[in-house]
Amino acid sequence: MNLYDTISAISTPMGEGGISVIRVSGENTFAVIEKIFFKDNLMKKKFTFADESTHTIHFGYIFDNKNKNLTDEVLISIFKNPNSYTGEDVVEISSHGGSFITQKILNILLQNNIRHAEPGEFTKRAFLNGRIDLSQAEAVADLIKAKTDSAHSSSIKQLEGSLSEFVKKTQQDIINIVSLVELELDFAEEGLEFVKKDEIKLKVETLNSKLEKIISSYITGKVIREGVNLVIAGKPNSGKSSLFNYLLNHNRAIVSEIAGTTRDYIEENLILKGILFSLIDTAGLRDSDDEIESEGIKRSFKKIRDADLILYLIDSSTDENIIKEDEKYFKDNFYEEKSILIYSKSDLRNKNNFNNKNGVKIKPDKIEISLLKDESIETLKNEMLKKVAVSEINTSSNEIILTNLRHKICLEKVVTSLNEAIATIQTGMSGEFISVDLRNALKHLGEITGETTNDMILENIFRNFCIGK
Amino acid sequence: MNLYDTISAISTPMGEGGISVIRVSGENTFAVIEKIFFKDNLMKKKFTFADESTHTIHFGYIFDNKNKNLTDEVLISIFKNPNSYTGEDVVEISSHGGSFITQKILNILLQNNIRHAEPGEFTKRAFLNGRIDLSQAEAVADLIKAKTDSAHSSSIKQLEGSLSEFVKKTQQDIINIVSLVELELDFAEEGLEFVKKDEIKLKVETLNSKLEKIISSYITGKVIREGVNLVIAGKPNSGKSSLFNYLLNHNRAIVSEIAGTTRDYIEENLILKGILFSLIDTAGLRDSDDEIESEGIKRSFKKIRDADLILYLIDSSTDENIIKEDEKYFKDNFYEEKSILIYSKSDLRNKNNFNNKNGVKIKPDKIEISLLKDESIETLKNEMLKKVAVSEINTSSNEIILTNLRHKICLEKVVTSLNEAIATIQTGMSGEFISVDLRNALKHLGEITGETTNDMILENIFRNFCIGK
Repeated sequence: MNLYDTISAISTPMGEGGISVIRVSGENTFAVIEKIFFKDNLMKKKFTFADESTHTIHFGYIFDNKNKNLTDEVLISIFKNPNSYTGEDVVEISSHGGSFITQKILNILLQNNIRHAEPGEFTKRAFLNGRIDLSQAEAVADLIKAKTDSAHSSSIKQLEGSLSEFVKKTQQDIINIVSLVELELDFAEEGLEFVKKDEIKLKVETLNSKLEKIISSYITGKVIREGVNLVIAGKPNSGKSSLFNYLLNHNRAIVSEIAGTTRDYIEENLILKGILFSLIDTAGLRDSDDEIESEGIKRSFKKIRDADLILYLIDSSTDENIIKEDEKYFKDNFYEEKSILIYSKSDLRNKNNFNNKNGVKIKPDKIEISLLKDESIETLKNEMLKKVAVSEINTSSNEIILTNLRHKICLEKVVTSLNEAIATIQTGMSGEFISVDLRNALKHLGEITGETTNDMILENIFRNFCIGK
Repeated sequence: MNLYDTISAISTPMGEGGISVIRVSGENTFAVIEKIFFKDNLMKKKFTFADESTHTIHFGYIFDNKNKNLTDEVLISIFKNPNSYTGEDVVEISSHGGSFITQKILNILLQNNIRHAEPGEFTKRAFLNGRIDLSQAEAVADLIKAKTDSAHSSSIKQLEGSLSEFVKKTQQDIINIVSLVELELDFAEEGLEFVKKDEIKLKVETLNSKLEKIISSYITGKVIREGVNLVIAGKPNSGKSSLFNYLLNHNRAIVSEIAGTTRDYIEENLILKGILFSLIDTAGLRDSDDEIESEGIKRSFKKIRDADLILYLIDSSTDENIIKEDEKYFKDNFYEEKSILIYSKSDLRNKNNFNNKNGVKIKPDKIEISLLKDESIETLKNEMLKKVAVSEINTSSNEIILTNLRHKICLEKVVTSLNEAIATIQTGMSGEFISVDLRNALKHLGEITGETTNDMILENIFRNFCIGK
């Protein structure tokens, strides 16, 4: 328990509320609290942690021990090491909400040689003290940031150890192969070599294709965890704001028949089948003399560049040549693989546009819609989900879905090491070399759960946490 | 305990944080939590409140009992009636922070026939169940909203019962007088009447002047609790934004020599001797053709009307006639009693402006300042504090300072009733009538602590609380 100093932070969100919680962890926790926490409001009745059990709650008064001023009536919760979140002695002070009073209590703690905790430092200690592994620590941050059911469900599973178990199982698979290799080394002289090496190669290949399948789940996992940046783009007056409002079921954007109505982009969240779409309505793409509109169009292009998915609208009620021009503009400026081409106002279009021999053939990802007639809007939604590769995911199944880029990179390194093992086998090198490759794979697997790790990895992970966790 | 239904709310501020707390109170609390809280993550190990003590903490898993989905790992804190904040059975669920997951847990509770709590409803129950009196309940809300040391210190004193004690002591004083009156009634026949009545009158008068002194503390108390709306006004280019920045010690407002630089008002907080000044820099007051500036000037006038204190700046470096005109404009448009007249740029002024016989005589609340020379800025700050009647307050003394308008109104009713008692004595009416007046005074005193109250008063008080307190 003497490994680390004593830290404190406000663990509840900032702002006005009924309750705020200030967390303290480390070996001086109890000694410092005894200096500032009393059973009465006159600083007379001392509180002694030695007399109290872990996991108990006590009412009392926090004093500024410098000027003896009463600061707040609070409840303190006691967690004695190792039975706490961090594994150290922990006290949680439940004070009246409000940022002034909470900050005041934190300042009293800091005056008493307690250090302000870094973001995620409590969870980091939970990891360093062996309470949770690294993938579980990462799940804590994801759980807090979750905004949809799918993100919530995947992070709670990871917190419960689904990924840790998968890592353990895979480690065991590799260890079994290593044993075979090393067993084979012992019997090499007896001529068993060739059969065994083929068997080992097959086992490694089978494992590798399993891992590659899991790596490929990351495309879905990223969408689950981070959501989709969806941009609605198109020429002025192609119906972008109408579609935006329609998808959101409310009138967020101002709609008019005047081209150039939307001058800056507007952003709103839409959840489809548990997936968060950050919907962005942009200014119509054209050359404009209006200074504010031009700036808006510049910003729209930036949003289009950053988008995961683009809905490009073409007004199908207009002249055929204009439509053709617009299609060319789309082809020249957008990546088709991350776009859905939509022919809007299909109720108003000249029926001949699409049916004569010069007409555009509508591909599966080109959709005609009429918001007036409620046509095709479900098709569009399904197409959106299909495009981001989540149309068939089942978040309640027990299959692993990788949501974290770090885990994906680790698994890719595992696959590389296993491929190296296969190459080593194929070149007919000695079992020792195969064993080295396999042990490399084990090392990279261990990085996921933090068995093998370094300070830089840890720093990277925990700096994205919030303060007080 | 069967008086009220079971309620729940998120008690911590909304937003991302390490911990959120969801509070549940009422007779079904334990029964509902037993349906959704389990000791293991498979919904197999049940949790039984009857087996556990009050003021203990337990780790476990919250499930959505409808679809059996694991929702979060949490800690629950148990408070068994009457030893809880509300006096009822209470559970506080400490979940991972983040609004999605917190909302999810709250929804599970609401699915199980628990009602979402009204703002301040937990504190209201604490009052209704006799845990705290009404002035203490009001102190809880003030404590959460406190933004300065003086506001914090006055509300924590009130929470500790300083006002309640004063009310009790005053009640006793009045009860003593009532006893004298009623004693006198018994001995009326023996001719003791006149002496006693004078004595009683004197006692009532003494008490009344004490109460009036406390009522007069409300001017200070309001400033302590609510702060001061301070507006800086004046003609364009009189140096308003420079003074604004100077008082705040940073460059918040854009300053230039071009009249009309500030087009909308800007607001920032300044704390002087524990008093919160909401500092508002306004657009220079003039007729303008610029549409945005005109709108800004309109808004400035609104801010001036709502201000508690105005700093009116006159550019003393300009021509004497312009200064005179500006002084006339000030006199015609502003209340002198809530304004401080400031002659800015005193370093640049024509020395003769103020010293010749036609010059303006500078009254004590008219101050010359030069921000360049750091002249008089301390004088200005002191003048500001003096104007809002807090220059000599000592918030650490034990004197009562009324911070709440409701308390002031109650005390004024007490004084009125006591004055009526004096009038009754003077008109020589029988002791019974004096007694009625005195008992009215007692009733109004009781309104402060809530001994005598009604639903409308309660509704008014608690609707200003935050949710979850």
